[in-house]
Amino acid sequence: MRTAYHSQLDSLSNDLASMAELAGNSMQRATTALLEADLALAEQVIGDDTKLNEVRVSAEEKAFALLALQAPVAGDLRTVVATINTAGDLERMGVLALHVATAARRRHPQHVVPAEVAPSFAEMGRVACDMAEVAQQVLLSRDVALAAQLESDDDAMDQLHKDLFSVMMAPEWPHGVATAVDIALLGRFYERFADHAVVNARRVVFMVTGQMPEEEY
Amino acid sequence: MRTAYHSQLDSLSNDLASMAELAGNSMQRATTALLEADLALAEQVIGDDTKLNEVRVSAEEKAFALLALQAPVAGDLRTVVATINTAGDLERMGVLALHVATAARRRHPQHVVPAEVAPSFAEMGRVACDMAEVAQQVLLSRDVALAAQLESDDDAMDQLHKDLFSVMMAPEWPHGVATAVDIALLGRFYERFADHAVVNARRVVFMVTGQMPEEEY
Repeated sequence: MRTAYHSQLDSLSNDLASMAELAGNSMQRATTALLEADLALAEQVIGDDTKLNEVRVSAEEKAFALLALQAPVAGDLRTVVATINTAGDLERMGVLALHVATAARRRHPQHVVPAEVAPSFAEMGRVACDMAEVAQQVLLSRDVALAAQLESDDDAMDQLHKDLFSVMMAPEWPHGVATAVDIALLGRFYERFADHAVVNARRVVFMVTGQMPEEEY
Repeated sequence: MRTAYHSQLDSLSNDLASMAELAGNSMQRATTALLEADLALAEQVIGDDTKLNEVRVSAEEKAFALLALQAPVAGDLRTVVATINTAGDLERMGVLALHVATAARRRHPQHVVPAEVAPSFAEMGRVACDMAEVAQQVLLSRDVALAAQLESDDDAMDQLHKDLFSVMMAPEWPHGVATAVDIALLGRFYERFADHAVVNARRVVFMVTGQMPEEEY
């Protein structure tokens, strides 16, 4: 029974890692679509949205089967329930990438992001995709030290987000209200994407160490 | 054993209902703090933030104890796991109310919300608090018809959110970029608060009927 439990748990971890990869991949393409006003790429991200949901539903089914058939207790029980929560967070990361793609499509053929903040978005996109990749590795390896790296990546994202706001709030901002509002919401999508990656890593730390790192808001 | 299970499940439902009440109460006070630039009230909402977390942690412990000791299967198993997810959503509603209170505090003694959009925020606050109250009742009663009401409340929230954006995007908007950005993010906090209430209601529908209503993004 322990062997069956562990092989089913491995299969679940693989599903979660696939979801992290799909979410990171969506965010990467959504960022390119945003920066290059690439409608076809935006449409592709929007069309791929159901993929993450499919893996989430399948992972959830596996987790329920595992709970019902193996009736794990203590740490094992918490681990399986955590996978259900993690699948929910990973799906949400995909939805946030979808929001970025939708913004790119909505303003096409215009660029949503003016030239002076394009490097900020390129960098937020890079950090977000790195975080999805690290989350993917953490979900597979349960490497607590690697999980901690996501905390500093998240600090970098928060700083990029703050810098973006200072540029927009400056009196010399020439792009008007509509563009600023688009950018503020887009900035939040990247920041929330990073937050969900961090929450996933914290759950892994909890599974391994029994201690949940403090959450920040 | 069935009796113990049901009495433990009732206790969990009561916890969730308390969380919905706390979240609604926080959003009501946060909205008043926002509209009246009431610093003391904003501070009160911010200080109360740990309360929701405490109930969430306690509900989660009860759910894990129930899973470990009763080893429920099929529908019962899904119900218990759903309570863990619901507690997470309700805590997030509290965080969104906290974000509103934080915005009110950050701009104090100035008003974040200019007079022409204050009625929109009053109305979004009213709808959000109504939705928290309906969610509270749904969590206790498992009334599927009442759960459906949250879908139309959410449509009302989306419409208010769209109207808010049209006011800000109008060429005659006199309040500049910083205010527009504040309002855009605040609008999103109310909209997300409503989304979480809807998700909670959908989970109740799923528990009762075995069918998950389609999610919208």
